[in-house]
Amino acid sequence: MKALFLHAKKFCYKPVKKALRSAKDVESKEMRCRENALVIFLTIEKGDGAENVSKLLDDVKVHMERIKASSVVLYPYAHLSSELASPKDAEALTEEACKALSEAFGDVECAPFGWYKEFVLHVYGHPLAELSRRY
Amino acid sequence: MKALFLHAKKFCYKPVKKALRSAKDVESKEMRCRENALVIFLTIEKGDGAENVSKLLDDVKVHMERIKASSVVLYPYAHLSSELASPKDAEALTEEACKALSEAFGDVECAPFGWYKEFVLHVYGHPLAELSRRY
Repeated sequence: MKALFLHAKKFCYKPVKKALRSAKDVESKEMRCRENALVIFLTIEKGDGAENVSKLLDDVKVHMERIKASSVVLYPYAHLSSELASPKDAEALTEEACKALSEAFGDVECAPFGWYKEFVLHVYGHPLAELSRRY
Repeated sequence: MKALFLHAKKFCYKPVKKALRSAKDVESKEMRCRENALVIFLTIEKGDGAENVSKLLDDVKVHMERIKASSVVLYPYAHLSSELASPKDAEALTEEACKALSEAFGDVECAPFGWYKEFVLHVYGHPLAELSRRY
């Protein structure tokens, strides 16, 4: 599991088109935005399981305390590793991560898995605004 | 060498603060923007050399033909690998990449190495808008 933590002044995205035939339909293709958000670009790798989600959650809790973001966005992102899990496994674990983060932080925005998405990302320039993690 | 190719409707950045004591001074801390740009987030890894720059250049040439971007931005990014080259080697090779890209594409925007930077990135949602590469 690889993750990129980005502290965003603002983050917006909209689903454009399915990248995987198996991708679930989305309720809306409108642009959705969050301000002062921790945006987690997440790549699920082969062999990842519940323990990786648990490590991610612990780490996000610590990091949220430090940066004082007001919301969390989970953004499935296949571009951080060349050791990708199967789409089916990756989707299931991403949903698990979404659930765990939502239980911890309330209203988490979980971007759809398996879609091409357009996004606008405004990242702060402070020293903790960008971190990479591997679990 | 790892790279993330992002086809951006618009990309802006500004240097905020040195992340490395050895970082060179910048001429300006103003926000700099490009539209319809191929933004290359580039991570130099241990053992990288001129041949990696050459592979990157070949690949960028092919990709620019496909996406028809009107400019190129090279953005040093230490977050795509855990096998980083030394800052000194990474800076030297990033400068080599900047030079090679500038020779091929003219007015390339090369963001400063070793700085914390704020950025605003608007990525298209088409299938070729985001690609990851390892050379």
